[in-house]
Amino acid sequence: MITINKHYLKLQASYLFSMIAERVSDYQNSNPEQEIIRLGIGDCTRALPGACIEALHRAVDEMADDTTFRGYGPEQGYPFLREAIAEHDYRSRGVDIDPDEIFISDGAKCDTGNFQELLSPDIVLAIPDPVYPVYVDTNVMAGRTGAYRDGRYQHVVYLESTRENGFMPSIPSEPVDLIYLCFPNNPTGAVVTREVLTEWVEYARENKALILFDAAYEAFIRDDDIPHSIFEIDGAREVAVEFRSFSKTGGFTGTRCAFTVVSRACRAYDEQGHVQGLHALWNRRQSTKFNGVSYPVQRAAEAIYSDEGKEQVRDIIDYYLKNAARVRKEMDALGFSYVGGRNSPYIWIDAGRDSWDFFDMLLSRAGVVCTPGAGFGTCGNTYIRISAFNSYDKVDRAMKRIGGIVRS
Amino acid sequence: MITINKHYLKLQASYLFSMIAERVSDYQNSNPEQEIIRLGIGDCTRALPGACIEALHRAVDEMADDTTFRGYGPEQGYPFLREAIAEHDYRSRGVDIDPDEIFISDGAKCDTGNFQELLSPDIVLAIPDPVYPVYVDTNVMAGRTGAYRDGRYQHVVYLESTRENGFMPSIPSEPVDLIYLCFPNNPTGAVVTREVLTEWVEYARENKALILFDAAYEAFIRDDDIPHSIFEIDGAREVAVEFRSFSKTGGFTGTRCAFTVVSRACRAYDEQGHVQGLHALWNRRQSTKFNGVSYPVQRAAEAIYSDEGKEQVRDIIDYYLKNAARVRKEMDALGFSYVGGRNSPYIWIDAGRDSWDFFDMLLSRAGVVCTPGAGFGTCGNTYIRISAFNSYDKVDRAMKRIGGIVRS
Repeated sequence: MITINKHYLKLQASYLFSMIAERVSDYQNSNPEQEIIRLGIGDCTRALPGACIEALHRAVDEMADDTTFRGYGPEQGYPFLREAIAEHDYRSRGVDIDPDEIFISDGAKCDTGNFQELLSPDIVLAIPDPVYPVYVDTNVMAGRTGAYRDGRYQHVVYLESTRENGFMPSIPSEPVDLIYLCFPNNPTGAVVTREVLTEWVEYARENKALILFDAAYEAFIRDDDIPHSIFEIDGAREVAVEFRSFSKTGGFTGTRCAFTVVSRACRAYDEQGHVQGLHALWNRRQSTKFNGVSYPVQRAAEAIYSDEGKEQVRDIIDYYLKNAARVRKEMDALGFSYVGGRNSPYIWIDAGRDSWDFFDMLLSRAGVVCTPGAGFGTCGNTYIRISAFNSYDKVDRAMKRIGGIVRS
Repeated sequence: MITINKHYLKLQASYLFSMIAERVSDYQNSNPEQEIIRLGIGDCTRALPGACIEALHRAVDEMADDTTFRGYGPEQGYPFLREAIAEHDYRSRGVDIDPDEIFISDGAKCDTGNFQELLSPDIVLAIPDPVYPVYVDTNVMAGRTGAYRDGRYQHVVYLESTRENGFMPSIPSEPVDLIYLCFPNNPTGAVVTREVLTEWVEYARENKALILFDAAYEAFIRDDDIPHSIFEIDGAREVAVEFRSFSKTGGFTGTRCAFTVVSRACRAYDEQGHVQGLHALWNRRQSTKFNGVSYPVQRAAEAIYSDEGKEQVRDIIDYYLKNAARVRKEMDALGFSYVGGRNSPYIWIDAGRDSWDFFDMLLSRAGVVCTPGAGFGTCGNTYIRISAFNSYDKVDRAMKRIGGIVRS
């Protein structure tokens, strides 16, 4: 009898953004005349940078000619892209990462979801709350959690981010083996200081733990003292894996390209306590289950590192940061408490009431879509996330609408 | 302590094609003047069809403008592509598949590798020998096999394809739960009749088993009586999942697009024996761990179903089939026994000696790369696979070179 993976049955309802899409769709069907402004899912709205467009057209032309056509590329990504990343994202900041420690993929969602496959089902997980749901759900599927009770999975150490601790998850008091961190944070928009990140690296080294560090929003960092990479912290190469994406950098959410950095020094252990290098295991996983990223897309990603590409990306991010500032201004005016919106496209707002109720209220009365904080964990139950990914005009109008209903 | 998935330690050496690439690279470095002709990995060499190139350029231009830019698409793929597939690959052949039973992905390698995640670690596997290594390795990683001994993993039912059974794996005598089949076959090039496929479907229905049917080479079928899809067989919707790819159809090996068909009727069971639909589970898996295929790539795949796209694809496949005929002609002349090369791009040749030795001989004396059969399982120990994916000129010269060394 073909029997299913029983852990799938522990999963709660459907995936957050699918649920939101359904509610929005229902509302739109009932109110076809209402213009809905979407500040929910963190999805770019501005065109790809011109340098990427040019690179795509050139690469497509290469695919049109037998003599320049490219078939299978390396599963790990083309050297031209891995080298550009090593140079511009790491070496230029004084971080020593080799091109062959960089694995190109079609998305940080895939990579953060897949990486846990390399690890034992018996390890102890520490996952922030609120958190990007993929970290939790992929571990549920793999059987690393118990049942879901009162909003949480059993056998997970939840690292709470609350107003009391400045939305900065605290080092766990018990030993844990695998720690998920995300900075600039999704969903709170909080950023981490070098000092706090150093504490995490030291904890991981002392406890033989591994940190999975999601830096998908790194391009939004503007303050000089905020680390862009966990590898800026001494000793992180042995205990951390970093996930990056072009989604929020170059607007690649629909174009699909990301990368994961696994240092050759990154350590895990077998049951006998012998060191096992995670670089070799991830390489084996990717060689076996993945076939590389579309060639034209890799050329587009490479173009982000050209002089004009860098300038265009900076302009795009500045644009979204201006949107975030507009949201902050409105929330200040309305007296809402919030975090984020600086060095981050997300603003995490204390709604002072149930987050799905607030979501429904904003949708039905303002035609504005946010993300209910409850979708990110119990610590989000009374928060909403507003995303700065939209046109300034729409963000501005959304803020005026929200201002109108809150004041009325 | 961060402990690894112990099953990774059972995996043998590195992935087949990586090993071949290393030997070829070593040889080329020692013999820089030798022109190497690659008939090893099944990788397309001809440019993308013109219809796909045009669609790519158009889609890239859409991404260049804020008003037509696309961010995140549906994880399951865009409706325009799912509908084109349902219509042209299924309904036009009288097979009733709905667009929402089709899941677009970036590769059949990923999908055939990932699908097993939905299933219990305790099921009994039946895997052909010889076989595409991904089916085996991904199950090793998931802990469904025992240790590797004498060329095989323990606790796997190997379905042998040998000259004695016409390279057609036999129905197992013991009950199995999960069966991998691939037709037209990789690596043997054998095709399956409707009668034999019906026996498999009946076996699966009687034993509550699931068939994972890899039809990546479907476009090479030219004989009218060979089924293109397992769903042409009555009752298959409940017991089979089908994997297809644009890699070998439209030359998308470097462009990356494929799809998996999971009928809403496809059944598995929980530990209590209750039916659990695999469509919902796969949808959950893909929504959680995948973020959809690059938008321009999906437009390129859609173009394959246009009138001009279909004609261009047919021309490309005809070209490769002519190459395959050239290989067959040489093997006939040299007196080698083989299967495949009709309705398939692969020719599986009885080398009459150790396959890696034969590989090394062809590489060092003829500068021709084939794939050693041993890489596909013990039944391949004295076989090699020759792939028809190259220019006719190169295939012709490779055959002349092989003819020369065999006759000398």
